[in-house]
Amino acid sequence: MCATKAEEYKPVLTKETINPLVLEAKYAVRGRIPSRADEIQSEIDSGEKSKWPFEKVIYCNIGNPQQLEQEPLTFYRQVCALVVYPKLLKDPHVGEIFPVDVRERAQYIIDHTPGGIGAYSKSQGLEFVRKDVADFIGKRDGFPCSARSIFLTQGASPGIQTIMNVFIRKPTDGCLVPTPQYPLYSGSLALYGGRRVPYFLDEKTGWSLSVAEMKRSLDSAKEFGIETRAIVVINPGNPTGACLTEQNILDILRFARREHLIVMADEVYQKNIYRKEEKPFISFRQVLLKNEAELKGLELVSFNSISKGFMGECGIRGGYFQMENVDEEVQQELVKLASLSLCPNLMGQVIVDLMVKPPAESEPSYELYQKESGDILRSLANRARRLSEMLDNLPCCSCQTIESSLYAFPQIFLPPKFIEEAQQKGIDPDEYYCLSLIEKQGLCIVPGSGFEQEKGTHHARITILPPENQFDAIISKFALHHEQMLKEYATPEWIDTIEKEKKRVKEEFTKK
Amino acid sequence: MCATKAEEYKPVLTKETINPLVLEAKYAVRGRIPSRADEIQSEIDSGEKSKWPFEKVIYCNIGNPQQLEQEPLTFYRQVCALVVYPKLLKDPHVGEIFPVDVRERAQYIIDHTPGGIGAYSKSQGLEFVRKDVADFIGKRDGFPCSARSIFLTQGASPGIQTIMNVFIRKPTDGCLVPTPQYPLYSGSLALYGGRRVPYFLDEKTGWSLSVAEMKRSLDSAKEFGIETRAIVVINPGNPTGACLTEQNILDILRFARREHLIVMADEVYQKNIYRKEEKPFISFRQVLLKNEAELKGLELVSFNSISKGFMGECGIRGGYFQMENVDEEVQQELVKLASLSLCPNLMGQVIVDLMVKPPAESEPSYELYQKESGDILRSLANRARRLSEMLDNLPCCSCQTIESSLYAFPQIFLPPKFIEEAQQKGIDPDEYYCLSLIEKQGLCIVPGSGFEQEKGTHHARITILPPENQFDAIISKFALHHEQMLKEYATPEWIDTIEKEKKRVKEEFTKK
Repeated sequence: MCATKAEEYKPVLTKETINPLVLEAKYAVRGRIPSRADEIQSEIDSGEKSKWPFEKVIYCNIGNPQQLEQEPLTFYRQVCALVVYPKLLKDPHVGEIFPVDVRERAQYIIDHTPGGIGAYSKSQGLEFVRKDVADFIGKRDGFPCSARSIFLTQGASPGIQTIMNVFIRKPTDGCLVPTPQYPLYSGSLALYGGRRVPYFLDEKTGWSLSVAEMKRSLDSAKEFGIETRAIVVINPGNPTGACLTEQNILDILRFARREHLIVMADEVYQKNIYRKEEKPFISFRQVLLKNEAELKGLELVSFNSISKGFMGECGIRGGYFQMENVDEEVQQELVKLASLSLCPNLMGQVIVDLMVKPPAESEPSYELYQKESGDILRSLANRARRLSEMLDNLPCCSCQTIESSLYAFPQIFLPPKFIEEAQQKGIDPDEYYCLSLIEKQGLCIVPGSGFEQEKGTHHARITILPPENQFDAIISKFALHHEQMLKEYATPEWIDTIEKEKKRVKEEFTKK
Repeated sequence: MCATKAEEYKPVLTKETINPLVLEAKYAVRGRIPSRADEIQSEIDSGEKSKWPFEKVIYCNIGNPQQLEQEPLTFYRQVCALVVYPKLLKDPHVGEIFPVDVRERAQYIIDHTPGGIGAYSKSQGLEFVRKDVADFIGKRDGFPCSARSIFLTQGASPGIQTIMNVFIRKPTDGCLVPTPQYPLYSGSLALYGGRRVPYFLDEKTGWSLSVAEMKRSLDSAKEFGIETRAIVVINPGNPTGACLTEQNILDILRFARREHLIVMADEVYQKNIYRKEEKPFISFRQVLLKNEAELKGLELVSFNSISKGFMGECGIRGGYFQMENVDEEVQQELVKLASLSLCPNLMGQVIVDLMVKPPAESEPSYELYQKESGDILRSLANRARRLSEMLDNLPCCSCQTIESSLYAFPQIFLPPKFIEEAQQKGIDPDEYYCLSLIEKQGLCIVPGSGFEQEKGTHHARITILPPENQFDAIISKFALHHEQMLKEYATPEWIDTIEKEKKRVKEEFTKK
């Protein structure tokens, strides 16, 4: 047999010959651990007698509420059904199925959507939706907002990436990003060829954020020739669950203006607030406009999404960003970039509208809407409290109070023997921990290394999203796995030392 | 009064300080002419006595069928209504409103969508949809297709951009792109920092495509240090409306393999075929697999969308790409890139599924589906014929037969005086022509300069989408404007010369 000519062909694209920036971008939330979880779930689904000691994988790796049995809000979906199939509005039974405000709202949306949801909208999004978003923001902040400053997007992520694409010109352009952070930031910065300039959040003091630390990081980047152009703040925090005070925000804005930085405020968890009295949500925009004289001209872009809050409409892909003080010509460039993708999907745009304009108190859908959204928020608050208490009470594990968002980000103290074993296998110790948790207990969480963390510490992100009737199981699965790990790898003396230190730190910072 | 400190603040982002690649990217289909059209329409809408000599702008600038009164297909939207609001399936009236196959299909989709359409799916898209797409492709081509080779996307554009992002590493990486072309290609190549390597389509012979011209262009790029890595083919053509033969496609594939290029086949108009007997649609994949021995290893990525065909579901944003011979590790990188945007919107994924799996002949929705889709296609074929004949019969205007897709791309012969006037205003002559057409007749079309064209020629792209009852008006608006332009700017002698040359070219190439 002789080799055929065809076999000599080498593909144009191999890992060695593609854009190296693509290789550099990482995204842990959908990385190795969730892939392993999917494999295991597939094996279980295949129906043969399973070798796994659990019936199904519980996914706590991603803020995907409806995957975990959270029901969509009735009002939203009723309106969507009519908007997607307008002929239904003319059906003789429609009045028996849909409340009058649902029908009126659907008709309003249809009337204001040229060509309906099957037609491309303007690149920046439907005008009436942008006006409604502007109204919502204006009322929330107490300062009027212009529809022109709003771009509708397919979730917050593409908006964040668009802004990065605009400000990153060269490999030495940097962006201050909190650590720990949501990996969209590190991944996208890598992909667009910019530099992440990390500032550390202080875990001991509830993941607080200090301008001194930002300044340290910025100066250190400068020494390496990095020109930092923007700062990302995630508030409420992901993965930390912390919520910033007004003074905090003002300090950051002052810092940004002093250092000539664009502020990117990721505020997608603004409705996920669990200790409203002590830690309400305050928007960056409000603090900026309250202090306009001092902060005049500072560029702020704020992001929001339909995927979080209590609606959790992740799969629909909708969101927006809003800009203050962004140059008019730059806005035109943003319109052009948006037009290259034609427009955000219209169903997402419609749900953005419903999010910012829920049923009014006088309308028939109000009561159900209040009940459904209230139940979800109360339950999330309850789960947040239970999960963080459980984690904080485990030996060699500590967890800050979850004030907001959808996650616990406990510190896990790993014994030297465990760390060594992980290192021998060439894997981050916390990834090794999470891998063992999925294989032994079927619980899928994300290692802290995927979010970046202070060197020598180990964490994991766990969503508070599994329904309450599964919560006991999750808590005991996690605790069992953790205790077995300690039993196998830690000496009683080591545990004792860690526990003493944990107690000491807690006492010191609670006193403060 | 003294200047306040705040006034000194210079924004971080100005046109001069943003990513220069963003500035370079252009997108004519939503550029200057449509913006002007929107302004004029707003003035008309504002209700004051209008200075414009028409009642509304007719948009023929973009393939957006539902904006121009094309109705969505009933079956698609019925299924979507139930999928978005599953409680409706349990309503006692549901059987009176929705045919049984619609209800069954919706239930099937709900059962196979973990968490419903409000949950993120896997980054590559829902598994059952990818399987259905694979089935459709396998049957279409007569060669089985694997679901693993399919990525669902939000329309074809983001898929095309993802592939560009992967193969462009540096400013000297090039991509062969037809001229004229759809401006997504030039715009995205500029944005990702690669080079467009243009090959010209031959207008006289019905926009035919020659490998010799591709080779000429490739070699010329090589001399300037450009490493061409990919070739884009748009078949059926946009903006040209031409459809490739099997021999044509085979020649291109052979050329690509010889020159070590990835083939990107933009096949979004595969259902828009108006002369099926002489010019059927043949997929690049089919020709590749038919000639596998010879073409072994050649990398092919094909794109499709729900926005075109007869459904025209532009606003929903759905599509897919399918790969042959793409390296396994590179596919993993594509999964990672997809995961950075989490997932394509689920409603778009659902409609992709309905597109590739329409009602079967035995099902109750079949008849209506056939009628609706057949009516649209017949009408499009009729409009294609009428528009190209009208344009070709105008003096100083010629138009090739529209075999497929949604556009006429006539050549417009502009008198020297007109060209001079445009140049004095610093504007492309065909853009000047389109601007005058919108201001005088309210007809919005896109200048050929937005699609790139052979130097010294002028064209415009006009969609065939306006409903038939508006078609007479469009035709007379265009003709009136064109003839007025000639009257104002051309001498009878010049017109005579052009007409003689037009006749000569036609005779020469019809004989062939």
